[in-house]
Amino acid sequence: MVYISRREAEKLCAGIFFQVGIPQKDAEDSAEILVTADARGIRSHGLARIRRYVDGIKAGFIKGGVEPRTLRETPISLVLDAQGGMGLSLSKHAMERVIAKARAQGCGVCSIRNSNHFGIAGFYAEMAARQDMIGIAMTNTAALGVPTFAREAMFGTNPIAFAVSGLGTDLFSLDMATTTVTRGTIEVAAREGASIPPGWAVGTDGRATGNPVRLLEDMLYKRGGGLLPLGGEEGGHKGYGLAVMVDILCALASGGVFGGDVRDSELTSARVCHFFMALRLDLFRDPEDFKRDLSRMLGELRSLKPAEGAERVYYAGLLEQEAEARCEKEGVPLSEEVWKTLAETARDLGVPVPGPRANPFGR
Amino acid sequence: MVYISRREAEKLCAGIFFQVGIPQKDAEDSAEILVTADARGIRSHGLARIRRYVDGIKAGFIKGGVEPRTLRETPISLVLDAQGGMGLSLSKHAMERVIAKARAQGCGVCSIRNSNHFGIAGFYAEMAARQDMIGIAMTNTAALGVPTFAREAMFGTNPIAFAVSGLGTDLFSLDMATTTVTRGTIEVAAREGASIPPGWAVGTDGRATGNPVRLLEDMLYKRGGGLLPLGGEEGGHKGYGLAVMVDILCALASGGVFGGDVRDSELTSARVCHFFMALRLDLFRDPEDFKRDLSRMLGELRSLKPAEGAERVYYAGLLEQEAEARCEKEGVPLSEEVWKTLAETARDLGVPVPGPRANPFGR
Repeated sequence: MVYISRREAEKLCAGIFFQVGIPQKDAEDSAEILVTADARGIRSHGLARIRRYVDGIKAGFIKGGVEPRTLRETPISLVLDAQGGMGLSLSKHAMERVIAKARAQGCGVCSIRNSNHFGIAGFYAEMAARQDMIGIAMTNTAALGVPTFAREAMFGTNPIAFAVSGLGTDLFSLDMATTTVTRGTIEVAAREGASIPPGWAVGTDGRATGNPVRLLEDMLYKRGGGLLPLGGEEGGHKGYGLAVMVDILCALASGGVFGGDVRDSELTSARVCHFFMALRLDLFRDPEDFKRDLSRMLGELRSLKPAEGAERVYYAGLLEQEAEARCEKEGVPLSEEVWKTLAETARDLGVPVPGPRANPFGR
Repeated sequence: MVYISRREAEKLCAGIFFQVGIPQKDAEDSAEILVTADARGIRSHGLARIRRYVDGIKAGFIKGGVEPRTLRETPISLVLDAQGGMGLSLSKHAMERVIAKARAQGCGVCSIRNSNHFGIAGFYAEMAARQDMIGIAMTNTAALGVPTFAREAMFGTNPIAFAVSGLGTDLFSLDMATTTVTRGTIEVAAREGASIPPGWAVGTDGRATGNPVRLLEDMLYKRGGGLLPLGGEEGGHKGYGLAVMVDILCALASGGVFGGDVRDSELTSARVCHFFMALRLDLFRDPEDFKRDLSRMLGELRSLKPAEGAERVYYAGLLEQEAEARCEKEGVPLSEEVWKTLAETARDLGVPVPGPRANPFGR
């Protein structure tokens, strides 16, 4: 691993986005979101994706500087056509508007169509959580998941994020795919020559498959098969139901592309759809009382006796929060490979590259 | 099985509730909800529970005729203390108020504390779905589920319901527990002398257990162990996160009892908490466009080629909707055992008992 400061990482990433045509403010916002993923240890959604974004922007699939078109608006709601814009900065801006609506009216919702990958859903939910609100964010994604009893992919990993703050730095922040695992996990098994367990995926006949290499090939060429929804063989109908719910709130609510029609962003504009919501805590209770109870709940969960062989009991977002706090002191850790791609991309575009450290800052 | 008409079933059940002290209108509403569960084939939540309700009412744990106390109210939100009232009728009434708020303002939310079992969550979500709205309903329940890496129960089966209508009778209606299975499934395995597979439950050491008899005993005496959240061994942290989300929206939002403090309703008032939400479809799009797209999506899912060995591809609520349509013609099917308890309970209270049929009506 190499380490660079969060500020340097953001500056580098923003510089790259700016050089390929993203306006300065959007470039900075997008960089903030990507680097946050790395800072939280969610490496699959951070700077490891820089080339995919840059290639998408260069190819014109992700459009810099386009303004989203407002399709419908009320004091509590907003529906946007992103017109193929940058999913990251666009989503941050949309959540700011949702939060402003919630501040004025108690509640704000927004559905967006024709967008592109927005990074980690939890980023947006937490924006609301920092403002004494409950925050929710969802997105549909390219179809990889197979409905229960079917044999072809009809929905994406369709993540759901839900965040609310307790007292001080206490935070509950759920950010979960509605499939059992993501394609990335299957790719790791394929690289390692491992077989995959039942409950992860089905082959072209719709039955459990253990062969990740064949599965990935079948998925790539759309021959059928794909990931099983959360719950796998036993309760997969539940994950399937949640994935459809996400598609309804994101795509049906915005008039966007849904189900098997959501394409992969490496070939064309993703045209994915998002959903955001904020609910002010004081709709329900005095926010301090709400937060005190949340802190009590989180404290109880943290101090549970762990199962035999386990070290600690976590709750959603705790590990990520601890990783982010470490980054403030130690810098953002990046794999050598990600750093190499990032530095090369920057140099090609004439963006100054800082010198990374081989060790965490302050050690 | 025996069959009685839906009308007769409701009248019988309402008569029982009325005789033990539930006001007439509340008795009728509560009966409607219980019988709907049987009509949809969700027998675990229907008339099979009549004795538990009656015993709870007689013992004073479930209070007939109490009015919920309003703790907080805005044009879009409502927080109630149910004061130990009848969870079924109370929840129907609360959802009516949520729908009225959404009709006026676009959105309505309600959290309720100190309530009792409300039956099937989907009933309330579908009330909104019939009014061109998205409906959401949740409840916390007695703690039976063990957080990932822990060894004691800290949350219930905490179901989530989400419903929205398409054109005509098309309906997407998700109603799912956030544990992999419910206690009822473990009880069936125990009765049949079967062992339970990994992913369903953990023992007192927090590790997978295959022994349902011992598990139920350990759960009963609060020795530790319990159900695994949705996702089981592989992705159980996601189901755990969803269960906590439900607890936050139901209990933290209403100032009610949460986590490991939610007790079983057979010993005392359940003091469970609920959450309801309705969002008007026209916040997002012309409702007809929204519903047309939903019908297209549901049609695509229904017509998917099934996996090898499977007969059909379903989506959430389809089987229940088909069962309910059959009941209109054939009557509500009840097991001999449930019928016997129901008829005995009615006779003891002097409620007239109709003669059931041994065959479906119209056959």
